[in-house]
Amino acid sequence: MSLDGTYDPDNIFAKILRGEIPAVKVYEDNEVLAFMDVFPQARGHTLVIPKASEARNLLEEDPRTLGVVMTAVQKVARAVREALTPDGIVVQQFNGAPAGQTIFHLHFHVIPRWEGEAVGRHAAGGMADMEELKALAAQISAKI
Amino acid sequence: MSLDGTYDPDNIFAKILRGEIPAVKVYEDNEVLAFMDVFPQARGHTLVIPKASEARNLLEEDPRTLGVVMTAVQKVARAVREALTPDGIVVQQFNGAPAGQTIFHLHFHVIPRWEGEAVGRHAAGGMADMEELKALAAQISAKI
Repeated sequence: MSLDGTYDPDNIFAKILRGEIPAVKVYEDNEVLAFMDVFPQARGHTLVIPKASEARNLLEEDPRTLGVVMTAVQKVARAVREALTPDGIVVQQFNGAPAGQTIFHLHFHVIPRWEGEAVGRHAAGGMADMEELKALAAQISAKI
Repeated sequence: MSLDGTYDPDNIFAKILRGEIPAVKVYEDNEVLAFMDVFPQARGHTLVIPKASEARNLLEEDPRTLGVVMTAVQKVARAVREALTPDGIVVQQFNGAPAGQTIFHLHFHVIPRWEGEAVGRHAAGGMADMEELKALAAQISAKI
């Protein structure tokens, strides 16, 4: 899917928001949800999404909601830092399949990095262990 | 430089903001500056930074300024799309050297992607041709 197109209400994140499929939640308020990526590129890889949005990507979001989402991204990034003490944190957001986007509901990746540790477990390692994700989510959540 | 440390007022972006070194500007208002990355990872690679900030990264920025910067990131991303019609756009922000950060003044990368075209000219290709950057900046700027 390119940058053109319309919002698909049956995308995975929309289903998570409707409670139709589970997610390991890290943070939630009226406007945003943060939860663990089940295909983590690193330990603690968290996603932040707007709740009431039908924006597929950053280009389509209204600026106010984008600001609210970024405040949550910052909150999560700070908590990830406190909880897991990474050496760095990558914040990434993809628009369109050719840019790496796979789910077409606006989302930001918060990815901790450790010195000397390669990223990309996503492709290599497959789906994360749910119990491990729950433990990480609890650690991060405790710092928010 | 890790996530710890203090703001260095002599970093390259601070010098650009003080007009001590040149930049190929794309957009400017009272609070933000957008300019071409001189080591572009793709044609049209643009950076967006806050002006009056001493935040080295996203963790240190005040949420209001972060919102203002994101509005500009969106503005630039939309203009890049209109001007250069990429197939996708990556938005990236690095915190700490182990995450890929090389200049310690908060900045967002807006990187157009084209189907079948590899990224990473940054490492391979070195510094961009200034005349080419100026032409790209004019194209993007015209759409803001």
